[in-house]
Amino acid sequence: MSYRVGIVGATGAVGQELIEMLRKRSFPAASLRALASARSAGKQLESAGEHYCVEEATPEVFAQLDLAIFSAGAGVSRRLAREAADRGCIVVDNSSAFRMDDQVPLVIPEINPEAVAGHHGIIANPNCSTAIALMALFPLHRAFGLRRVFASTYQAVSGSGWQGIVELEEQVRAWVESRPLTASVYPYQIAFNVLPHVDRFLEDGYTNEEAKMLHESRKITGISDLRVSCTCVRVPVLRAHSVSIDAEFERPADPDAAREAIEKFPGVEVCDDPASNRYPMPRDYSEREPCGVGRIRRSAALDNGLALWVSGDQLWKGAALNAVQIAELLHTRGLIPQHHRA
Amino acid sequence: MSYRVGIVGATGAVGQELIEMLRKRSFPAASLRALASARSAGKQLESAGEHYCVEEATPEVFAQLDLAIFSAGAGVSRRLAREAADRGCIVVDNSSAFRMDDQVPLVIPEINPEAVAGHHGIIANPNCSTAIALMALFPLHRAFGLRRVFASTYQAVSGSGWQGIVELEEQVRAWVESRPLTASVYPYQIAFNVLPHVDRFLEDGYTNEEAKMLHESRKITGISDLRVSCTCVRVPVLRAHSVSIDAEFERPADPDAAREAIEKFPGVEVCDDPASNRYPMPRDYSEREPCGVGRIRRSAALDNGLALWVSGDQLWKGAALNAVQIAELLHTRGLIPQHHRA
Repeated sequence: MSYRVGIVGATGAVGQELIEMLRKRSFPAASLRALASARSAGKQLESAGEHYCVEEATPEVFAQLDLAIFSAGAGVSRRLAREAADRGCIVVDNSSAFRMDDQVPLVIPEINPEAVAGHHGIIANPNCSTAIALMALFPLHRAFGLRRVFASTYQAVSGSGWQGIVELEEQVRAWVESRPLTASVYPYQIAFNVLPHVDRFLEDGYTNEEAKMLHESRKITGISDLRVSCTCVRVPVLRAHSVSIDAEFERPADPDAAREAIEKFPGVEVCDDPASNRYPMPRDYSEREPCGVGRIRRSAALDNGLALWVSGDQLWKGAALNAVQIAELLHTRGLIPQHHRA
Repeated sequence: MSYRVGIVGATGAVGQELIEMLRKRSFPAASLRALASARSAGKQLESAGEHYCVEEATPEVFAQLDLAIFSAGAGVSRRLAREAADRGCIVVDNSSAFRMDDQVPLVIPEINPEAVAGHHGIIANPNCSTAIALMALFPLHRAFGLRRVFASTYQAVSGSGWQGIVELEEQVRAWVESRPLTASVYPYQIAFNVLPHVDRFLEDGYTNEEAKMLHESRKITGISDLRVSCTCVRVPVLRAHSVSIDAEFERPADPDAAREAIEKFPGVEVCDDPASNRYPMPRDYSEREPCGVGRIRRSAALDNGLALWVSGDQLWKGAALNAVQIAELLHTRGLIPQHHRA
């Protein structure tokens, strides 16, 4: 069985990773079409030696596809994902558009694969920082019962797409060449700076990105009364997000038992040997599939708590990898209809 | 009244700031001598148009001084601070050597100025991240009663002295010029990376820097049962530290009341208007005396809690400024003896 697959937002940073990830993981794609806005239509893309001609993503094109992975922002998903699903094309959506929709499963395949069964044509991929944090927290939840999370993020500029990368690189070059630094993607200089500001601000003072960590974590883990306070911070790192966490549990949480629980869980690994300076860093968790967890210790501020640090590639586990894993899950469970096939 | 002042570690990043800060704040120094290791003796320093010939810091030199500010690391302080005090020279020590010594006041002048009264010749200056965090937390403690702190830091490379600055700058230049990046100050590349590792690791998995946030906070605030969990992280920023905090209080903590309490407190200011993208950043709090507090909101994970973000210049409030403020406090309280004077 193989599928006619479309990537919506194929010219973007995540879009590129999606194309490579589908090939890297040998997803059974009979065909792979690169879709984007009318503005990008006609562009040539090259990925791993293959050439793609970018086509405009119109509602009609989805009638010729079995599966589409959307990564072109919430606006495009709101406009086209339902159109695609209505035409029988299953949508895996990277955007935030449908994540909190009761009709849409929000899935991390290692954590809640069973949720895909209830899909109505659209399956949502979680927020990047949330996915990376949960890869560390969910095995600990199973072991000790998660109650409360305090998180501070260290988010790479590639979370803002190509533009974020270009802006940091250009600012660093300008600095070396003693030219003035200009900012357009971020409200302020990101080189040699950190911004406690990711996504838009909400009424309660949290940002939308921070609120996602609360709401998406509850939906994915099923812990309906989980408490989460998160501060999301952009740092001058090109790729891979990190999260500093204090987590409170129902039961006593021992660091050795925590390491064992994480080590046994798929998609995440322990990288934790302070004596030899081993801890996760964005440099080491860029273009790596598993997330890395380290600095695991009893939290000095909680009775049943752990402090820990997790790094993961937000373009991979936080986006393209998780989306392709969802597609694989749909495939192995026979949930991708191929009724279009002649 | 004016004093014969010595700066121990005058060639270091904090030493330089100390010389400038004493002049900037018009500290009544009759003379200012630059002291350092034998290796630096004979070097010429220039600061704000003044020239200093670096002298070796020997025990004997302190017999000719009324006040010495030490900023040459804990080893030098352990070797020479008591020698200085025994010769009647009051020591303000920037290092960690004596901070937790019961005989040594640990002072942030805005917070516990009364503690200087009990000095025995040595007064300790707190850890940089601790000082910056407490400038935000202490006014909130007064308003609501501080119980518990969860903190994650974003620490600039100048916290490691000149070498830290040189290493980040050199790595960034190497990256722009496509040369290999080499690391010596930090165990790994710091450019485009973050390291959850500041200071040495302790038995319990926290680093010494993280433990300082707990122990020094208790000593300075007098809250003997304060609980603090901290993760200290080095980020590719040249100057000024930031701290992301969730804080729990005895009484309900309202964000507006919190802003008012901070605004009324000396040495710290509110920089908090999300609607116009106003929040503290290291770029804006470098070479600024007050620390800035923003992102103030009710913590979603605590009943009586606030989440907030603070930035401050760790070479100033985290080191040189606070040390000079201690010297000013000693001066105004008549606590610097001038018995050497002929």
